[in-house]
Amino acid sequence: MFAHNPIPVRPPRGANAPPSREACAALDRADVLAAWRERFTLADDIVYLDGNSLGALPKATAARVAKAIQNEWGEGLIRSWNRSAETSGWIDAPQRVGDAIAPLIGAAPGEVVVADSTSVNLFKVLTVALKIAASEKRRRIVSEAENFPTDLYIAEGLSALLGGATELHLIECDANGANGDETLNKIDRAIGEALDETCAVLMLTHVNYRTGAMHDMARVTQRAHDAGALVVWDLAHSAGAVPVDLHAAGADFAIGCGYKYLNGGPGAPAFLWAHARHRDRFEQPLSGWMGHADPFAFTSHYAPAKGIARFLCGTPPILSMAALECGVASIADAGMAALRAKSIALTECFIAAVEARMQGVLELASPRDTARRGSQVCFRPAGELAGHTYALMQALIARGVIGDFRAPDILRFGFAPAYVRFVDSFDAAQALADVIAKKEYLEVRFQVKAAVT
Amino acid sequence: MFAHNPIPVRPPRGANAPPSREACAALDRADVLAAWRERFTLADDIVYLDGNSLGALPKATAARVAKAIQNEWGEGLIRSWNRSAETSGWIDAPQRVGDAIAPLIGAAPGEVVVADSTSVNLFKVLTVALKIAASEKRRRIVSEAENFPTDLYIAEGLSALLGGATELHLIECDANGANGDETLNKIDRAIGEALDETCAVLMLTHVNYRTGAMHDMARVTQRAHDAGALVVWDLAHSAGAVPVDLHAAGADFAIGCGYKYLNGGPGAPAFLWAHARHRDRFEQPLSGWMGHADPFAFTSHYAPAKGIARFLCGTPPILSMAALECGVASIADAGMAALRAKSIALTECFIAAVEARMQGVLELASPRDTARRGSQVCFRPAGELAGHTYALMQALIARGVIGDFRAPDILRFGFAPAYVRFVDSFDAAQALADVIAKKEYLEVRFQVKAAVT
Repeated sequence: MFAHNPIPVRPPRGANAPPSREACAALDRADVLAAWRERFTLADDIVYLDGNSLGALPKATAARVAKAIQNEWGEGLIRSWNRSAETSGWIDAPQRVGDAIAPLIGAAPGEVVVADSTSVNLFKVLTVALKIAASEKRRRIVSEAENFPTDLYIAEGLSALLGGATELHLIECDANGANGDETLNKIDRAIGEALDETCAVLMLTHVNYRTGAMHDMARVTQRAHDAGALVVWDLAHSAGAVPVDLHAAGADFAIGCGYKYLNGGPGAPAFLWAHARHRDRFEQPLSGWMGHADPFAFTSHYAPAKGIARFLCGTPPILSMAALECGVASIADAGMAALRAKSIALTECFIAAVEARMQGVLELASPRDTARRGSQVCFRPAGELAGHTYALMQALIARGVIGDFRAPDILRFGFAPAYVRFVDSFDAAQALADVIAKKEYLEVRFQVKAAVT
Repeated sequence: MFAHNPIPVRPPRGANAPPSREACAALDRADVLAAWRERFTLADDIVYLDGNSLGALPKATAARVAKAIQNEWGEGLIRSWNRSAETSGWIDAPQRVGDAIAPLIGAAPGEVVVADSTSVNLFKVLTVALKIAASEKRRRIVSEAENFPTDLYIAEGLSALLGGATELHLIECDANGANGDETLNKIDRAIGEALDETCAVLMLTHVNYRTGAMHDMARVTQRAHDAGALVVWDLAHSAGAVPVDLHAAGADFAIGCGYKYLNGGPGAPAFLWAHARHRDRFEQPLSGWMGHADPFAFTSHYAPAKGIARFLCGTPPILSMAALECGVASIADAGMAALRAKSIALTECFIAAVEARMQGVLELASPRDTARRGSQVCFRPAGELAGHTYALMQALIARGVIGDFRAPDILRFGFAPAYVRFVDSFDAAQALADVIAKKEYLEVRFQVKAAVT
């Protein structure tokens, strides 16, 4: 199908000398993004490595949401829907916040809207992509079995609704035991094989939620196009964390999440982008009033708006939208190049610190190649630690180092470059080593069992 | 199809003596719900008759959302997802807030969830209702051309997606010029005629958004069932304003809005109810992770949760959800009987006050029969005022009386019984009379033109 270009697998560990805490503190002092951390509310006794699940709270958010409540809602009441952005600007919020996200993902102004959830937005773009690309023979949505589950569920739901007109084909790529780089090479090959004449839409998450493995967006998109398929990219673990250039990649559709690296708060609305070449060709199925060409005319038939506004559906949750606007603003002026440079440095520092302490005990599950790794690092416990992964993470959280457990056997650490420090990398690695050395995970396990059973 | 039981049309106007302002003030002093108004932020110089578009701000909301931001998000961070309701309770919020709404609509605990928007929820239940009721011959979704447009748009979008397997049939019932009671009689007849062997699902809004005309839910549901169809009820203008008893009515599915009489704030999440007899039979198409039987197992295949949770999709907007929880709490203990009694008294008072001042100038567009009128009153300007409706409402808003214009010719006034006073009814009628007597609408019209062109 296309030439296979494997990633060179570098020496597994010990390649980088582990930094000292003093060296990490020096890196923090020299950090060009040091001032950005001051924009966030973060307790001193917490090392927060879970910004890829829920971004930290920008200090500006509380006042902004309080204004939306007291001034805009309480005093402005219904009038705030149609007042200017300086006063309230509710009606334009989906486009305005979309415009703020656009430069982070290589989209142009007017090309992105914020609405609904990532899952709902995926349903919209997947449907339109199928309308464009599917035919009697070309019926497949292709994705990875390791893709984020809710994306797969949405594709399953859509397939069921379309009653056999389409089907979801999952690329199974046994990643157990393999390191991140080997897995990526396998997946690259498997995607190439799946891009046959039955594939209508390739649905991928740019950065894998468990391993942090990152697709080469431009290369995969080109291959899909060469094979006659379109690509829907989920940018949930990319936007605000790694540079994305949708136009340079020739991408078709993208959706993503507001509450991870965009710091929009729990359940923040999601974003949606469609290339102009596809945008106005079909209606999306969740044709609510906000996507109407003339939403206040209250006509009884739907006529889609021109442009990206047609992907809106119902009335957006304005308070959560105001928080998202603050979240995006908290990182928008940092520049994706600076954010990415720090992210790579942080993850390299963490990997070196962990591997220096826990060689043979924790195995890197993320790609070692920084070009193919998102802003997170995952480890898999090996040997006698295998099976204790959940308890390990609980013990670590009890020490104030907050990461994530991802079933079945992943310790996941997110490095939001706007507010994570190099000393956090160091302290997290040290805490992890201590938890293992003192077997703290054995105690936690009992507590969890007691709580659950 | 079924016996026609027309509403007796009462004498059009002048039947009730208009109350004096002193009499209204006395009614407010005797009002058993007077204390509820104190729960809301309402400026003294505003008469707010638009709670059916955006409910007023409960005083408790700002502190509740501030807690969600500072304590739950800022300090609790990701941990708040799984903490108890006393601390944060994010993961259970869709069910918890649903349980708070349930008694307002005659649903049982565990039967209602809060999620997404009304439009998105309609898409879910409409799909499931079709799966149950549709057949090769029974392909129609029947609704009113006068139904809220976004409901029609969603049905159109679903029909288009299903590619001819279903179609939307709109009952056209020319209401122009007819008064509300005559229109209701016409619609009752037309619904009966449309409930033939081609109708799979009858999709109605319980209280019409423009006129306030209210369907007899139990009677219409019974007729639909007798004809072999299911009914999807939109309770947007009912929940929190008029008593609804879904179980007593034998209803099938219902959805509704959080930001009108439930005071959840702009774009608050919406609610969804499905009768247990239908709930577990089919999967809804927006099968996101929150509706999975085991959402944290991260399996690659969807398995719907048992019960109403399967109607959840993506991650809910927690800040907006917290505001909705306050909004529901602000009226939940008032009791629907007391709210309804006051609502009827307020609307009767307003109608009498308007008709005493503007006989022949404004024509009642809402049903005069209180049993068939929701918590709103609509007038249509007649004679030389016709065509000035938009400007009339703008002039009224400039005087601090906030109602709504609804195209093409409706002045709409909502009476949220938890916080609207009898003196508000009086003052609104007086302001409307003054605006008309002084022809203030002519000036406004120029300003609007200047602003738009």
